[in-house]
Amino acid sequence: MQALVLEKIHELSLRDFPVEEALGPHDVRIDLRTVGICGSDVHYYTHGAIGQFIVREPMILGHEASGVITEVGSAVTHLQVGDRVCMEPGIPDPNSKATLQGMYNLDPAVRFWATPPVHGVLRPSVVHPAAFTFKLPDNVSFAEGAMVEPLAVGMQAATKAKIKPGDLAIVMGAGPIGMVTALAALAGGCSQVIMTDVQQPKLDLAATLGPITPVNVAKENLAEVVDRLTDGWGANLVFECSGNEKAAAGVFAPLCPGGAVVFVGIPLQPIAYDVAAAMVKEARVEHVFRYAHVYPRAIALMGSGKLDVKPLITDTFRFHESVRAFDFAVNMPPTSVKAQIVVAD
Amino acid sequence: MQALVLEKIHELSLRDFPVEEALGPHDVRIDLRTVGICGSDVHYYTHGAIGQFIVREPMILGHEASGVITEVGSAVTHLQVGDRVCMEPGIPDPNSKATLQGMYNLDPAVRFWATPPVHGVLRPSVVHPAAFTFKLPDNVSFAEGAMVEPLAVGMQAATKAKIKPGDLAIVMGAGPIGMVTALAALAGGCSQVIMTDVQQPKLDLAATLGPITPVNVAKENLAEVVDRLTDGWGANLVFECSGNEKAAAGVFAPLCPGGAVVFVGIPLQPIAYDVAAAMVKEARVEHVFRYAHVYPRAIALMGSGKLDVKPLITDTFRFHESVRAFDFAVNMPPTSVKAQIVVAD
Amino acid sequence: MQALVLEKIHELSLRDFPVEEALGPHDVRIDLRTVGICGSDVHYYTHGAIGQFIVREPMILGHEASGVITEVGSAVTHLQVGDRVCMEPGIPDPNSKATLQGMYNLDPAVRFWATPPVHGVLRPSVVHPAAFTFKLPDNVSFAEGAMVEPLAVGMQAATKAKIKPGDLAIVMGAGPIGMVTALAALAGGCSQVIMTDVQQPKLDLAATLGPITPVNVAKENLAEVVDRLTDGWGANLVFECSGNEKAAAGVFAPLCPGGAVVFVGIPLQPIAYDVAAAMVKEARVEHVFRYAHVYPRAIALMGSGKLDVKPLITDTFRFHESVRAFDFAVNMPPTSVKAQIVVAD
Amino acid sequence: MQALVLEKIHELSLRDFPVEEALGPHDVRIDLRTVGICGSDVHYYTHGAIGQFIVREPMILGHEASGVITEVGSAVTHLQVGDRVCMEPGIPDPNSKATLQGMYNLDPAVRFWATPPVHGVLRPSVVHPAAFTFKLPDNVSFAEGAMVEPLAVGMQAATKAKIKPGDLAIVMGAGPIGMVTALAALAGGCSQVIMTDVQQPKLDLAATLGPITPVNVAKENLAEVVDRLTDGWGANLVFECSGNEKAAAGVFAPLCPGGAVVFVGIPLQPIAYDVAAAMVKEARVEHVFRYAHVYPRAIALMGSGKLDVKPLITDTFRFHESVRAFDFAVNMPPTSVKAQIVVAD
Repeated sequence: MQALVLEKIHELSLRDFPVEEALGPHDVRIDLRTVGICGSDVHYYTHGAIGQFIVREPMILGHEASGVITEVGSAVTHLQVGDRVCMEPGIPDPNSKATLQGMYNLDPAVRFWATPPVHGVLRPSVVHPAAFTFKLPDNVSFAEGAMVEPLAVGMQAATKAKIKPGDLAIVMGAGPIGMVTALAALAGGCSQVIMTDVQQPKLDLAATLGPITPVNVAKENLAEVVDRLTDGWGANLVFECSGNEKAAAGVFAPLCPGGAVVFVGIPLQPIAYDVAAAMVKEARVEHVFRYAHVYPRAIALMGSGKLDVKPLITDTFRFHESVRAFDFAVNMPPTSVKAQIVVAD
Repeated sequence: MQALVLEKIHELSLRDFPVEEALGPHDVRIDLRTVGICGSDVHYYTHGAIGQFIVREPMILGHEASGVITEVGSAVTHLQVGDRVCMEPGIPDPNSKATLQGMYNLDPAVRFWATPPVHGVLRPSVVHPAAFTFKLPDNVSFAEGAMVEPLAVGMQAATKAKIKPGDLAIVMGAGPIGMVTALAALAGGCSQVIMTDVQQPKLDLAATLGPITPVNVAKENLAEVVDRLTDGWGANLVFECSGNEKAAAGVFAPLCPGGAVVFVGIPLQPIAYDVAAAMVKEARVEHVFRYAHVYPRAIALMGSGKLDVKPLITDTFRFHESVRAFDFAVNMPPTSVKAQIVVAD
Repeated sequence: MQALVLEKIHELSLRDFPVEEALGPHDVRIDLRTVGICGSDVHYYTHGAIGQFIVREPMILGHEASGVITEVGSAVTHLQVGDRVCMEPGIPDPNSKATLQGMYNLDPAVRFWATPPVHGVLRPSVVHPAAFTFKLPDNVSFAEGAMVEPLAVGMQAATKAKIKPGDLAIVMGAGPIGMVTALAALAGGCSQVIMTDVQQPKLDLAATLGPITPVNVAKENLAEVVDRLTDGWGANLVFECSGNEKAAAGVFAPLCPGGAVVFVGIPLQPIAYDVAAAMVKEARVEHVFRYAHVYPRAIALMGSGKLDVKPLITDTFRFHESVRAFDFAVNMPPTSVKAQIVVAD
Repeated sequence: MQALVLEKIHELSLRDFPVEEALGPHDVRIDLRTVGICGSDVHYYTHGAIGQFIVREPMILGHEASGVITEVGSAVTHLQVGDRVCMEPGIPDPNSKATLQGMYNLDPAVRFWATPPVHGVLRPSVVHPAAFTFKLPDNVSFAEGAMVEPLAVGMQAATKAKIKPGDLAIVMGAGPIGMVTALAALAGGCSQVIMTDVQQPKLDLAATLGPITPVNVAKENLAEVVDRLTDGWGANLVFECSGNEKAAAGVFAPLCPGGAVVFVGIPLQPIAYDVAAAMVKEARVEHVFRYAHVYPRAIALMGSGKLDVKPLITDTFRFHESVRAFDFAVNMPPTSVKAQIVVAD
């Protein structure tokens, strides 16, 4: 089969690459349709590694995917051939303690698409566990289906936040993860979002997505905006999505007493964390690692029209343009959020 | 001052009725603008009592209210003359144990407007604690402001439910409380609502309010609809808003494993409660009593455009028509949801 | 192998009964040591069925068990031959939605020892999944290990209750489940327990187990005791363990505002449930179905000396006396709580 | 009245110091009996200030207090003359938003004993709000009653932790706050505590308080102990009570997936916080600021015998020895935990 293969750092090729996959009784076989390009895919391309995960052999990229079921294992009951689906890219060990406790995302043995040595899905077809394959409603396109993966991170953050209806949230960072977190927070019960960044084009796009107040922290004072919108009380929730050490160090200042902070972005270094500032507000702090159990929830919100990811899909490429798509993604303009590759129509 | 006075059971008059109210340091004085008619107002009119609360002296009716501040106590800092506001009708004892623990709605000493012997606000002005008076955004009208009180019951239910983003909820009963609960559930994070009733006109209205699937249980099978929409898993949440004993006895059947039920409607008699049915799903059951801390949240959702109560305001009367308005409310057609009285423009 | 076989209703025999069990990679083989007699075992003996579960073929009884590992599957890492262990009697489907969400006890496909047609463990040995087999500390005897199963129900109730340190709890019903629930509630953070029953010998035993105030509701007024001990506020928690319809209907009266009720006992009929009484306190109601994830917690509390089940083990029989043990359990005196059978030393 | 007055930094005197206090309707007057010496009292003595709170006028010290009621305000119903009591030293504004929401400890307007310019209670009598005055059971001494204040910090931490019955907790730091946190964690449901410090005498004392495993991190490897006691899974809870920046930076390493950290000690500087390490475990982090609503809970646990603070009261002085008591407290030996002053018998 043709696949987008990361041969080694800086070298991508679209070429024939055989992958043998047997269909187990609890599996389905899927023909891929749309696959989004994630920052991690780009990072493996440009750096050859992420932390301990190093590309040592040619590896197929891509893990944000949708497709159509072509074959169904003997024990699968809730899916059938022809179903339009999207898939969770991580497959945990069903016998691990974390999985049994419902936290399969924290199982250290998870096998995750396009994380060495596991192949991704920029290829014609894949075999996957039915339990991690989810049917799309008729009104959700394959392009939107491939957005469920990044959206799931925002959904996990919104779930961990334990939003109370009407909460006001700050989302720090208007990159792709900040965008999906803002959408998930609003769909999940927040009345409004204050979004911060220093790139004005990203903030301009964010402002079109719903009741979102953009704050360019290079020019505006976040504290003043929060004071004005909350009558001096502070924000109920702060989602740190920038991964920027300085931003992450300032999460407690705009928070209200009893409020919560969710760390979504991953700073490269430990941050300066002001315990005393967190104490006077008895802040609760949550951290997300990928996601668990949120795919059906994300799909339900998209299907009912409460959450619209379409404005985030800014750039679309054909499968034969895959290498060019990645080169585009390496230097994405600030007006772009998500680039996708249409593997097949 | 002119006021709508319930002289005794079955006898209402709009007449001069003096009420002397001193302004304390933590109080504000408010000129009333719009006051909604609640089922409890109607019940005092037609029955002269609700449970232990009996109308023994002439009493002013009305507790769903908005207005404009005309005077401000010396210790009030967050409100000023001219502010457009709505008010919580219950005033708790600040020294009670329940109030100190943040559950002021459960304080047995609460003084509640239009609950004997406390006067309501179908009158030109009232003095009220600033802590229970809330500023309206410019884009929220007085009519919508007077809807915050009934909406607050739905908000309390949605808050107690601890909605996870994307939950599917059933709302049993398409009366005014069912309607505001459905709106609060959707704004509070649910992906969709299944609404049940036996009156088709109410269900037809409900279906226009958002992603709401109406089910006329006189003709349709709720279990089948739930199975179809949830692939056999069940609804995450059931809000029982009908107060009907038979409906209330059936809350566990359509619930998913680990789901939650919120009782909002008040059955007149104890219901038949199937403990064993609740056990096999380890259901969590919550109960609401009025509301606490949700006014600012309801106002924020209305102000940001995430929750629209306007379709529920079906009938408007002028202050001089107040008696006629109540007679209308006694026999409200199924196409009506909420009648309001404009006390002043 | 010799086993205690329920041939059919009213007929037990200790006889040779071959059971072939293969050891899978994730399994262990266990030599049984002590097995407790549960009310459900007795019920199958005297009634031949519990609800939909009907004894149609000869079935080995017993599911409260401890033993020693004699063989270990190839993929098992945390257990070894010679380990002293106790076992969860229910084995869920690892691919079910409930299991994946961490609620394996709610999986309808659970296979549970001594629930037709699954054999129990009153026999020399059994093969069991390692994930549901738990090592006992050196200071926990086999007899105590066999008590973990009934204790787990109390632990599940104490966990669902979300005890805050220092809560005062009422436990209704001083049978075996009431006893273990009281122990779990105290070990789990309650300051004291009020225990109700109408059988004085049971209450007398309960009073020796810790800071437990027995209330014989045939002679004493529970409300008065609660008012005295809580200064009129009410109990934080009510655990309904009697399964008695009348007791279950009275759970809200002694509860404090914002308190919680946990239904542990299973009434045979729907109960009269006073929604209005639950509302004025905004009660939270939880239900337990067996248990999930609590075995290691129960064992940890026993091992550290914070929870002592030994006073509940009132009657011990040898394996060859098994039939007599069951006949004793059928008519257990009120001074007895738990009868156990020592399968091997 | 005679009082222990901090005249200015480094200068204490026991001298006549008149304080006029009127008794309001919701107040009680209390004759002091025992007052403990807190680290903050000592800090004002040795440094003249804590952060923004600077001693500018002579101020009476002491805020850990018990006593006997001598006069009762007209609106007080639950207390009477002669009642033995202990008192919360902080009095919030009943009209603040934080107080109304049940978080009175987060009200910035709190007036706190012995925090400039508010006088403490090392004096014969004080007037105090009845709502913050708590009756002691007969079996709780005045010395124990004066320990409720420091214990309350541990109780707040144990409450925020949301302990599940049987959790294993690490308490970092074996100072007074570490000790009371360990006691509260055990009484609040933990099965055992691992306690760390570098001072062996403190660890030796800690080991006598219950199922507590002391770990001298100057000599032993915490990670190894945790791995051994949890079979490699990690601790459910980490209470950081040392206030040491290096210790605080290491809270995530010994934590289990899905575990929680509570910051109780106050580091003087921001700490190095490893967001990525917190993420792979999806850690929840809580922070405590003093306490709210836990006095009755602490007293209930002491009264029922589940929590014993007596081993922590290592040094007792008479009122006339107060200055000497403070000089002792300035250089407390590692074998001492809490010094108290008996104001009157």
